[in-house]
Amino acid sequence: MTAGKTPVMDALVDFVLGLELAAVPPAVIEAANRSMTDWLGTAIRGSIEPLADALASVIAATGGEPQATVVGRGRRTSALLASLANGAQCHALDFDDTHLPAVLHGSAAVAPVVLALAEWQHASGADTLTAFIAGFELETRIGRVIGKRLTERGWHVTATVGTFGAAAAAGCMLGLDARQLAHALGIAGTQAAGLTQSFGTMAKPLHPGKAAMNGLLAALLAREGFTGARAMLDAPEGLAGTFLGVTDLGRAAEDFGKRWELLHNSTKYYAACHLTHATIDAGRAIRARMPLAADAIESVRCRVLPLTLKAADQREPKTPLEAKFSVRFCAAMALLRGDAGEAEFTEASIADPTVALVMALVSPVADDSIAITAAHMSVRLTDGRVIEERISAARGTPGNPGTRDDLETKFQRLAGAVLPAPRVAALTAAMRGFAEAKDVAEIAALAAGPA
Amino acid sequence: MTAGKTPVMDALVDFVLGLELAAVPPAVIEAANRSMTDWLGTAIRGSIEPLADALASVIAATGGEPQATVVGRGRRTSALLASLANGAQCHALDFDDTHLPAVLHGSAAVAPVVLALAEWQHASGADTLTAFIAGFELETRIGRVIGKRLTERGWHVTATVGTFGAAAAAGCMLGLDARQLAHALGIAGTQAAGLTQSFGTMAKPLHPGKAAMNGLLAALLAREGFTGARAMLDAPEGLAGTFLGVTDLGRAAEDFGKRWELLHNSTKYYAACHLTHATIDAGRAIRARMPLAADAIESVRCRVLPLTLKAADQREPKTPLEAKFSVRFCAAMALLRGDAGEAEFTEASIADPTVALVMALVSPVADDSIAITAAHMSVRLTDGRVIEERISAARGTPGNPGTRDDLETKFQRLAGAVLPAPRVAALTAAMRGFAEAKDVAEIAALAAGPA
Repeated sequence: MTAGKTPVMDALVDFVLGLELAAVPPAVIEAANRSMTDWLGTAIRGSIEPLADALASVIAATGGEPQATVVGRGRRTSALLASLANGAQCHALDFDDTHLPAVLHGSAAVAPVVLALAEWQHASGADTLTAFIAGFELETRIGRVIGKRLTERGWHVTATVGTFGAAAAAGCMLGLDARQLAHALGIAGTQAAGLTQSFGTMAKPLHPGKAAMNGLLAALLAREGFTGARAMLDAPEGLAGTFLGVTDLGRAAEDFGKRWELLHNSTKYYAACHLTHATIDAGRAIRARMPLAADAIESVRCRVLPLTLKAADQREPKTPLEAKFSVRFCAAMALLRGDAGEAEFTEASIADPTVALVMALVSPVADDSIAITAAHMSVRLTDGRVIEERISAARGTPGNPGTRDDLETKFQRLAGAVLPAPRVAALTAAMRGFAEAKDVAEIAALAAGPA
Repeated sequence: MTAGKTPVMDALVDFVLGLELAAVPPAVIEAANRSMTDWLGTAIRGSIEPLADALASVIAATGGEPQATVVGRGRRTSALLASLANGAQCHALDFDDTHLPAVLHGSAAVAPVVLALAEWQHASGADTLTAFIAGFELETRIGRVIGKRLTERGWHVTATVGTFGAAAAAGCMLGLDARQLAHALGIAGTQAAGLTQSFGTMAKPLHPGKAAMNGLLAALLAREGFTGARAMLDAPEGLAGTFLGVTDLGRAAEDFGKRWELLHNSTKYYAACHLTHATIDAGRAIRARMPLAADAIESVRCRVLPLTLKAADQREPKTPLEAKFSVRFCAAMALLRGDAGEAEFTEASIADPTVALVMALVSPVADDSIAITAAHMSVRLTDGRVIEERISAARGTPGNPGTRDDLETKFQRLAGAVLPAPRVAALTAAMRGFAEAKDVAEIAALAAGPA
């Protein structure tokens, strides 16, 4: 790379193009595989959500070369449109994996792109996984520096920063050279979007789909000689400067080979905003100690990160989507039902007067000293007793990860809602052996689902 | 509309859906026609720029139903991809019409969408013009409130705010109801992007293409029941709040039927950033009074808006694109050659040592008291004389508009670079009679160009 004015861009481009799977620690490769597997389950399950119907209608009308599969929908379309649909589907239940320090869903915008290009190009599992790791690491390195501030300001980091991850992964799959990849990242950055104002609507899951499509478009254009601002990550007037007034992303370009962000990734075992999970764990722990009737509860005090209230303080959720962003609703579910999976985020739960009763007793309190994986819950009973729980590492976070079995159980439940059992079993095995796959198009075909 | 929490969104939706051509003043209809005509010329001319080749390659690989024409390229593709290509082509030379008070190019993101949908749906000229007016008025009303601040912050308003215009126009063409249109505008806002950091690269003209495509996608999705944040224009956490900390867009929703933003639109007669035009006029006027050899000039002092220096202060342009954003280059061209058309923004001009010599003598000075259509130039000669010019209304701005003939001369020069003369003549006539056209697809076919 040319030395000088764009050190962050140059270093990230060098990292992406220099990445070789043989040099990646096995634990990182396993984390990448788990992330892609978890992503695939959520994308397949998302195919039966209403937003997938709307996207499928638009895609059917638009048309495109049959390059890539829209998972679960039995349709192939252009890589651009398949990335859009799969990126939206995976986030429809807000159940995909989360990188908490970067405040983003790391697979959501990256996996759709590598899967679409792998199918189109008949790429190997190893090459696909390498591109996934490149995109994931790049976006989470940026997210670690500006993700929290972006979220506080009103940006949906999964989309805004995910656009860079998608472009990097696409650039890797398409074999861009260093100059082209820098342009691709510039073109990606100028498309970066996604506002938290959309939370609670279908536009929220649309975000990573758009980020995937935009990042892929950037890389496809750069391959054809299209230019963008290579100072996008370095200049004071680049993305971080314009969005936040932040002028130094240098930390994103440090410690290559020592720091692997994939090791800090989390799996969601609850179908809600990740920032509610520690609170759900606390509620479940309290319920495990002492099942509580709603009328035995006087008040529920939850101490959470200020960020949790920024992202997930829907006070009166009216839809399942809004309920996923209601720490009050999540706390009530945990205390009353002991879980917060797909089955709990329904119109019926929202309409349940007992749930409403307990929700009204929940007071979330912001506490800046709390870790992002932690929460504290204190339930005061009508008989005067107080039950407390402190969670330091929510289930699925790096300090409390599940096993591969846990992950596959979740995958099979999600994929099994769409695909027949033998297909789900075959996909589970295929994802386990992903790094050895000769042609990822065969795996995509397994995920196609009913036409 | 439902009353209450989203007064700006509700009022704009009511305006768009209530617009009838019979109630629009003839001067506004003529201004809309001129804007679309000028847009078409720039989009056809842009089809032979390198960025159009790159887009065409990506579009060819992607495929799509042949719904709409990529003008000048002899290809039909999906309405989404045609909007992308035509929106980028029209801005390739930075020669499309400009709404200075809104700091955006009003046709760039809107015209591609109405043209693509009109062709796909075989709509009449009157319906197409109505949708164009709706989109143009909506985006410029928003741009008038926040355009200047967005630009100062680093946003390319043509793209960010243009996304709303594209969605509104598409919603109008697609016959969305009020609820759907509000969702479409919410989905549009969360895709709004485009950074001035991209100026000087192909990503700049890509912006309106992406805005057109994103706005159209928003409307297509909303028609299928997709939801977005209807508070996008009203909530403090909506677009204006997140981008700028601005919480009141109320002025955008005032004076309907009294204020027509199309009457404040400007035509570009120079192929550079509009903020340089008054300076070019000043230079041309000085040259008309006294042709100057480069070595007779000691210094050139230009007083311009601070915004001009924000957008167009490329000190050492290396490419024609960068030269369009160099008030120094533009001043030198005006003084040396007496024009600043397509022919002046070339590699050869940039490499010309005489141009470099004069550019080095130009000192732009920011002056907040200057109007956006105005400039002042003071040339000091080596013999001690000083020649000054004050321009209050640059050529093509509302205070100094050209005739329809001027516009058609420009159109024919641009379109004539791509299409044969009889085709250009037919298109000129067709655009003059656009409001009476029965099927806009016939006009799009005239603009198709060589395959």
